[in-house]
Amino acid sequence: MDLPFLTALSPEDLRAQGIGAPWTFGVADRVRFGELDVLGHVNNTVYLRWFENLRIRYFETYGADASSRPKIVLRNVGLDFAAEVKLGDDYILTGRTVELRKTSFTMHYAVFVRGQQTTTGHAVIVCLTPDNLKMPIPDEWRAKFIEMDGAVQA
Amino acid sequence: MDLPFLTALSPEDLRAQGIGAPWTFGVADRVRFGELDVLGHVNNTVYLRWFENLRIRYFETYGADASSRPKIVLRNVGLDFAAEVKLGDDYILTGRTVELRKTSFTMHYAVFVRGQQTTTGHAVIVCLTPDNLKMPIPDEWRAKFIEMDGAVQA
Amino acid sequence: MDLPFLTALSPEDLRAQGIGAPWTFGVADRVRFGELDVLGHVNNTVYLRWFENLRIRYFETYGADASSRPKIVLRNVGLDFAAEVKLGDDYILTGRTVELRKTSFTMHYAVFVRGQQTTTGHAVIVCLTPDNLKMPIPDEWRAKFIEMDGAVQA
Amino acid sequence: MDLPFLTALSPEDLRAQGIGAPWTFGVADRVRFGELDVLGHVNNTVYLRWFENLRIRYFETYGADASSRPKIVLRNVGLDFAAEVKLGDDYILTGRTVELRKTSFTMHYAVFVRGQQTTTGHAVIVCLTPDNLKMPIPDEWRAKFIEMDGAVQA
Repeated sequence: MDLPFLTALSPEDLRAQGIGAPWTFGVADRVRFGELDVLGHVNNTVYLRWFENLRIRYFETYGADASSRPKIVLRNVGLDFAAEVKLGDDYILTGRTVELRKTSFTMHYAVFVRGQQTTTGHAVIVCLTPDNLKMPIPDEWRAKFIEMDGAVQA
Repeated sequence: MDLPFLTALSPEDLRAQGIGAPWTFGVADRVRFGELDVLGHVNNTVYLRWFENLRIRYFETYGADASSRPKIVLRNVGLDFAAEVKLGDDYILTGRTVELRKTSFTMHYAVFVRGQQTTTGHAVIVCLTPDNLKMPIPDEWRAKFIEMDGAVQA
Repeated sequence: MDLPFLTALSPEDLRAQGIGAPWTFGVADRVRFGELDVLGHVNNTVYLRWFENLRIRYFETYGADASSRPKIVLRNVGLDFAAEVKLGDDYILTGRTVELRKTSFTMHYAVFVRGQQTTTGHAVIVCLTPDNLKMPIPDEWRAKFIEMDGAVQA
Repeated sequence: MDLPFLTALSPEDLRAQGIGAPWTFGVADRVRFGELDVLGHVNNTVYLRWFENLRIRYFETYGADASSRPKIVLRNVGLDFAAEVKLGDDYILTGRTVELRKTSFTMHYAVFVRGQQTTTGHAVIVCLTPDNLKMPIPDEWRAKFIEMDGAVQA
């Protein structure tokens, strides 16, 4: 794989790797030794780390100026494991927002290894002020979630 | 909290800590510095580690002789976060099997801090042979899941 | 092993476990699944986590009121691995301060499994103000380091 | 920084990043959210993970056919922290073998952020057979350690 790691990938980048619609955002990375467990595969806890890494790049890329950028907190998360991932595997993570509410939204995630989808996931994410009060999704994000990801209002 | 850490707790131990039915199995532990993230609370990925620690003690305690003990693999996992957990918090993890199929079963989990339930979770777990073929749930486990946890056949 | 985990152990507790002078402070804990690597033993990075856990309890136990308690930063750390540690092993960590300077000090560490010393380590630790300026070792700590650990002025 | 992550960098790649002799091997990577601790900087334990990642690529790149490739075990490791590293920092890790013995060797490591060296380290590494007996350093490695890194016989 010849992609820059942990850098926002465009829809065109994803298509070139055999990853089709509806995915429009992704990052590439490589499995590290410390992510394996005794069974020799990537441990289940590591996938939440990976989606955390994706989210940071996703929110950066989708904008929102510093004053309106909320603290992002997970309310709920789920993972489905379809195939194991091994040491030295390069992978692409994809993520998109599928549903919008006033102060929270739902994202879908997937892991691709050599063009094959392995683990998928989802998260319900809440926007908080620095004082931990719920705050509305920033307008820039809302616009991008709809335009880029096809997110729908719940 | 005056409980031994990472040791199987009985229903009586749990009741004494204010943790009621249907929970019949738990382990106690304490938050560590390395489990916190920049936001100062236990990171979301850490809960999967905790439930992994619980499962190891759970399967040991529920028996199954070495020859019939399967390799345990997660098919699916989910977490609901209701309140954050902080450095130095002592916590009790609870786990029980709620549904049985031929080669897989569903567990429920919860985290309690000072008697209050914070994060809950579930997992669908598959039993595999050393060659990664599906194998039936061991009879000793099946009997315990029904007797101790009130698991039902799907 | 029948000791409370992550709780300050006294010199008497340590002696009862076969751990002699000069060790006067320790904590007990148990190896977890996620601390193993593919080689089936505790990964080298985990020992730094363990000594971090020990330090937090050590500084708490040795006192210093909140206003004089510095931010603790590592300047230097080293580990010597003499034997591997495995899943389910209970272990005792020991730590002591051996040398005092104005704003920094040197600690020694060891890991004991079933009374046998496995990994040893050391760290040079600097005391900082909230603004990251060097500050003197708190008087309460200095007194304890000398009285309890036999630390010497450099 | 415009370098492929976790890929072997040549001496020329390093020079172009302002990293001079004696470094001849490196890999680039980016700090991740989960590598930070509550203090907002990369936690001390993470550097051992980074040097582990570097070593895997280093030993792959320096060759040795599968039949003569030993199990690599750390005997000793040390880290010196000169400056903290933060979220989103891109960094280059460098590593070289400085001293050869019959069955073990000593490596030096460094972390560079924006051309500035931050943390340095070293490790004493032992070559073992699958049965955990000491075995000689593979000839291909020995030749590369001398030719590329200027390693000297102890």
